[in-house]
Amino acid sequence: MSVALHPDRLLPTTQPERDIARSLYEEVAELPLVCPHTHVDPALFATDQAFPDPTALLITPDHYLLRMLYSQGVGLEELGRLPRSGEPAPAADPRAVWQRFWDHWHLFRGTPSRMWIEHQLRAVFAIKTELGADTADVVYDELAERLASPEFRPRALFERFGIEVLATTDDAAGELAHHQALGDGQWNGRVIPTFRPDDVVDPSKPGWRQALKRLAMLTGEDVGTYEGYLAALRARRAAFAGLGATATDHGEETAQTAWLPDGEAARIYRDALSSPLDGETAGKFRAHMLMESACMSAEDGLVMQLHAGSVRNHHRGLYERFGPDVGADIPTRTDFVHGLAPLLNELGTHPRFRLVVFTLDESTYSRELAPLAGHYPALRLGPPWWFFDSPAGMRRHREAVVETAGFSNLAGFNDDARGFTSIPVRHDMARRVDSGYLARLVAEHQLGMDEARDVARLLAYDLVRDTYRLP
Amino acid sequence: MSVALHPDRLLPTTQPERDIARSLYEEVAELPLVCPHTHVDPALFATDQAFPDPTALLITPDHYLLRMLYSQGVGLEELGRLPRSGEPAPAADPRAVWQRFWDHWHLFRGTPSRMWIEHQLRAVFAIKTELGADTADVVYDELAERLASPEFRPRALFERFGIEVLATTDDAAGELAHHQALGDGQWNGRVIPTFRPDDVVDPSKPGWRQALKRLAMLTGEDVGTYEGYLAALRARRAAFAGLGATATDHGEETAQTAWLPDGEAARIYRDALSSPLDGETAGKFRAHMLMESACMSAEDGLVMQLHAGSVRNHHRGLYERFGPDVGADIPTRTDFVHGLAPLLNELGTHPRFRLVVFTLDESTYSRELAPLAGHYPALRLGPPWWFFDSPAGMRRHREAVVETAGFSNLAGFNDDARGFTSIPVRHDMARRVDSGYLARLVAEHQLGMDEARDVARLLAYDLVRDTYRLP
Amino acid sequence: MSVALHPDRLLPTTQPERDIARSLYEEVAELPLVCPHTHVDPALFATDQAFPDPTALLITPDHYLLRMLYSQGVGLEELGRLPRSGEPAPAADPRAVWQRFWDHWHLFRGTPSRMWIEHQLRAVFAIKTELGADTADVVYDELAERLASPEFRPRALFERFGIEVLATTDDAAGELAHHQALGDGQWNGRVIPTFRPDDVVDPSKPGWRQALKRLAMLTGEDVGTYEGYLAALRARRAAFAGLGATATDHGEETAQTAWLPDGEAARIYRDALSSPLDGETAGKFRAHMLMESACMSAEDGLVMQLHAGSVRNHHRGLYERFGPDVGADIPTRTDFVHGLAPLLNELGTHPRFRLVVFTLDESTYSRELAPLAGHYPALRLGPPWWFFDSPAGMRRHREAVVETAGFSNLAGFNDDARGFTSIPVRHDMARRVDSGYLARLVAEHQLGMDEARDVARLLAYDLVRDTYRLP
Repeated sequence: MSVALHPDRLLPTTQPERDIARSLYEEVAELPLVCPHTHVDPALFATDQAFPDPTALLITPDHYLLRMLYSQGVGLEELGRLPRSGEPAPAADPRAVWQRFWDHWHLFRGTPSRMWIEHQLRAVFAIKTELGADTADVVYDELAERLASPEFRPRALFERFGIEVLATTDDAAGELAHHQALGDGQWNGRVIPTFRPDDVVDPSKPGWRQALKRLAMLTGEDVGTYEGYLAALRARRAAFAGLGATATDHGEETAQTAWLPDGEAARIYRDALSSPLDGETAGKFRAHMLMESACMSAEDGLVMQLHAGSVRNHHRGLYERFGPDVGADIPTRTDFVHGLAPLLNELGTHPRFRLVVFTLDESTYSRELAPLAGHYPALRLGPPWWFFDSPAGMRRHREAVVETAGFSNLAGFNDDARGFTSIPVRHDMARRVDSGYLARLVAEHQLGMDEARDVARLLAYDLVRDTYRLP
Repeated sequence: MSVALHPDRLLPTTQPERDIARSLYEEVAELPLVCPHTHVDPALFATDQAFPDPTALLITPDHYLLRMLYSQGVGLEELGRLPRSGEPAPAADPRAVWQRFWDHWHLFRGTPSRMWIEHQLRAVFAIKTELGADTADVVYDELAERLASPEFRPRALFERFGIEVLATTDDAAGELAHHQALGDGQWNGRVIPTFRPDDVVDPSKPGWRQALKRLAMLTGEDVGTYEGYLAALRARRAAFAGLGATATDHGEETAQTAWLPDGEAARIYRDALSSPLDGETAGKFRAHMLMESACMSAEDGLVMQLHAGSVRNHHRGLYERFGPDVGADIPTRTDFVHGLAPLLNELGTHPRFRLVVFTLDESTYSRELAPLAGHYPALRLGPPWWFFDSPAGMRRHREAVVETAGFSNLAGFNDDARGFTSIPVRHDMARRVDSGYLARLVAEHQLGMDEARDVARLLAYDLVRDTYRLP
Repeated sequence: MSVALHPDRLLPTTQPERDIARSLYEEVAELPLVCPHTHVDPALFATDQAFPDPTALLITPDHYLLRMLYSQGVGLEELGRLPRSGEPAPAADPRAVWQRFWDHWHLFRGTPSRMWIEHQLRAVFAIKTELGADTADVVYDELAERLASPEFRPRALFERFGIEVLATTDDAAGELAHHQALGDGQWNGRVIPTFRPDDVVDPSKPGWRQALKRLAMLTGEDVGTYEGYLAALRARRAAFAGLGATATDHGEETAQTAWLPDGEAARIYRDALSSPLDGETAGKFRAHMLMESACMSAEDGLVMQLHAGSVRNHHRGLYERFGPDVGADIPTRTDFVHGLAPLLNELGTHPRFRLVVFTLDESTYSRELAPLAGHYPALRLGPPWWFFDSPAGMRRHREAVVETAGFSNLAGFNDDARGFTSIPVRHDMARRVDSGYLARLVAEHQLGMDEARDVARLLAYDLVRDTYRLP
């Protein structure tokens, strides 16, 4: 592989599509980045400290990399992940982990991770060295040098990347200290929180009661009653909104929404305070809380994001040792048609309510989500998520949804990034793939060139701002 | 967008496929149109009155347009749909609705509706004006002028389109007055009915008992007993066949077929006459009635069409105000393998029986339907339905089914049109897309050019005639 | 269709992909064939007798051909299949069956069967005559002449094809006489058995108790107890391994795995010895036996293959007359995420355990299987199976799995052949399609050319050897 990134990478390979796509891409390549859904740590920007080292930046926190290496026999300890308790765990040497990663670089051929890493090193960090096991050490040094210099601090990169706004994802019962610090006026970068209530709406999670206590402390509400609990949630939403949040985010294994009968939610809540719920009851409670959350969104205008269909921690033993987010979450079949019916029937036309849905079940693209979004005004379809945030994944998404939902019912792009420096790379990939998709529509005379230019900009910039109500 | 339709629209954009596809397309472009499944109103041809105005022709009755506009906040009243009862409802001005549609024309980019509308205006109505919000008024006038002239009356268009036969879809308990009138010999256009028993086989529908009464009146049978009910259905089928019908059509949420135990159907039927059935029992009764209907088809030779997998009226509030068919039907997962097993085991090899299946669950194309059609002689696969009657939808269908089912187990194309003037446009789209699909097989040396020519004709003309037993 | 095979068949049709693909294909075209999963009869190689006639070679045993012909009204008797009992059944004349097949040759347009047959006749048998109904007789004679000559005997073909190793699929309770004979040292071709326990692990099958008796005779174990039964299975596995087997193969309708509670399996087993099990209990027993089998694999290192998701003998009447494998098996939805959770949680990281999974539910490629294989070290994804062992089927597979699972979690290619002479043709098709897939990655600058060469070889040769632990 040549050391320079090819300017036409991921564009169509034949004419007339290539020239059309190039022209479309050029129009959107430099548009600002809007990032309404990331998992970036707000501390980065609050403290603006240098990234510690190449491994901590690129390898250890990336569950895409961990899973692939793990699938080929590399243990998580060897990759610098520490078991969460008890075991003796010598911290892995960052340079050794880095070398181990590059020893397995070939595993990533054909995957988006390969491109994300390569493009970051080339485009963000201006590394010109050939990449691979032999040069891992050299690249480590080069990258470490970059990281130590002021222009590679988080705030400087934020500005260089052209990020207009970046939303983090934050526990409903978290303190938002970093976001408060960011509000002190010393830096103009716009970093906002997102209200993620998963830990406080699932009474079957071990930490639920602890989370409620934090909720009570932060809000002064009495979470001993269901009414107080709802009041506390509302108060936290208001606090998040006060720090700029425009959205909430809900991670669920199913897309089931349903009101519990009158009084039942309060009863279940009370029971759960004293003893753990069984899975089925907890599921009903969560389905009910999605309805409550949607109603709150209709009141306060926070855009509701639903990420449904991931079986979290499929590998129980690994979860017990290392905790979540190490690459063992597996998608599962999801029924949006019946699952979302209660919610959409109640709020699908509410002018203040907006729902953005993400799926890992591609069979629902054309069968369920595009038809639903092509009807209910409140619903918009999130971009291809997780495993599908990839060239082929994006193409399948466009092919499957646009004919039924059009472009205006899409939520635009979001990067869902954990690694901050992957953000420009992911936006660039999406802009290239969309340019290619639109080029085909133009080449087939389905769209005029001027229209395609409008749509390219819509997908890259306008839709996401509008969807997430970003001022 | 240039005002002329590009002659190569929807054909492959690269060589050698483009030249091959052009050559194939030229062979089939002018073949007669066979339309065995439409929702066109037979009154059009019985009365041959001019279409009232552009809006009534193209906008108000098209649920594809209504849904997309609705999804972006345009109310159905603003589009000329009247609530079905009670509310004061000033009829919307057709010209204002027309303007509203063109104000939102951009919403349809990338959708088949966009091409259907554009191609109708260009190819059917010879409108040369640029299309858009600015010119909506001009185009309205131009189109209104066309509609007022004799060569744009329904019968004249029928002949100009080269329609060989057109089947409408008609209530089993309807009078077929227009079809009877068409049989008077004054006009040679072949317009035939299709027997659609949905309203008379679902005892959970509000209008079921009313429909039975009409059935009794039309046939003289005693629908107070299950035996009489079956006799009435048989009599109506014979009446439809007498007016040229060659097919029946069954719309079901699931594909479940199953005999009820002896006597159980009669008992359920009797109960349903006096009080409404619960959903589950009604479902079993319908599964049973699919078996009964299939047996009748094996007797009388009417081809059985099954359109399965649409959750009708997902948006209950909208349904209550505006009734069905306003764009709120949503596809759902469908199990054909177990659902059709009883029916196919009983009649799948019957020489008089033929079943044409349509799905909205694309995951069943390769997993269920193509394998079933590649085995059971009675089964043929309908063309991509509804949301998938689109360029990408058709391509996915071919890619997914042909390798397993071959071409001869397909039912050919049908347009499923509501808008009469969209018919030639839809056939043209299918012929272009199939030419492109076949061109790839030729370019990859999977098929010879002579073979591809045969298949192109098969898909455009021969298969549909054979499948629907059109004389 | 020209009589020569086109050298570029199935390669990309446009540049630059075509040249890249050609270059990749040239590197792998002549690599040895590794065949770890076939349904070829080992008697072929043990006896090395000439194939009896063209029809017995190519038509009668091929369920792909039988099903397609049957779907268009040709009875199985007319194709040389004998009802399994009772009925008078005059054996069909092979030449008449051959003619009947070519009379219906057009049915196979667009299917892989068409290419398999054509490429076998051209490339394996050097038939130059135009193919079709008119020339069927001539081709029959030409082929019969070839079959009679020594260089078309099975062993000679085995060597000419460049087969490095070929695994058959053998009943766990079979004698393996042919494999024993092959071990006599007179011929160097490597033909090994595969342990297929389906008949001995399903107590709802009619022949189960008979199979147990054979198991007891072969092993000397007391199959009257569950412990003895397990011991007998272990003994047979050892016997298979002694004859070179490196794998087992399990055909299941679902992918459900689960331990039964302590003692429950033994109790069910004991009950089943005296009276047939109901379907549900048998299903639980089989789910349990998958766990037992996996544990045995972890002990003895035999690679476990799971072919899940086929509803066998969907057409009951046909099954009763003709038995299994006549083209009436239909795929069904499969849930690998929950189904495999018990097995993968227990053994997914076991260093001796390896599981290769095959599916007929393409919706699971990206949603379930690629994510699972991208995490669990023990899991590899089998190539596209059965209906999907086809050009478009292979392309969909690569598009859906590689971005998530990478290449190294794939099992490489296997041909799953019943017809021995189709083997080189199937490998050739896969090598062409993979060359085309990789060419696109190169043309889009996702992969370098050197990397693509490595991967092409991996997919064609290295991965399958490694996956199946072939020495």
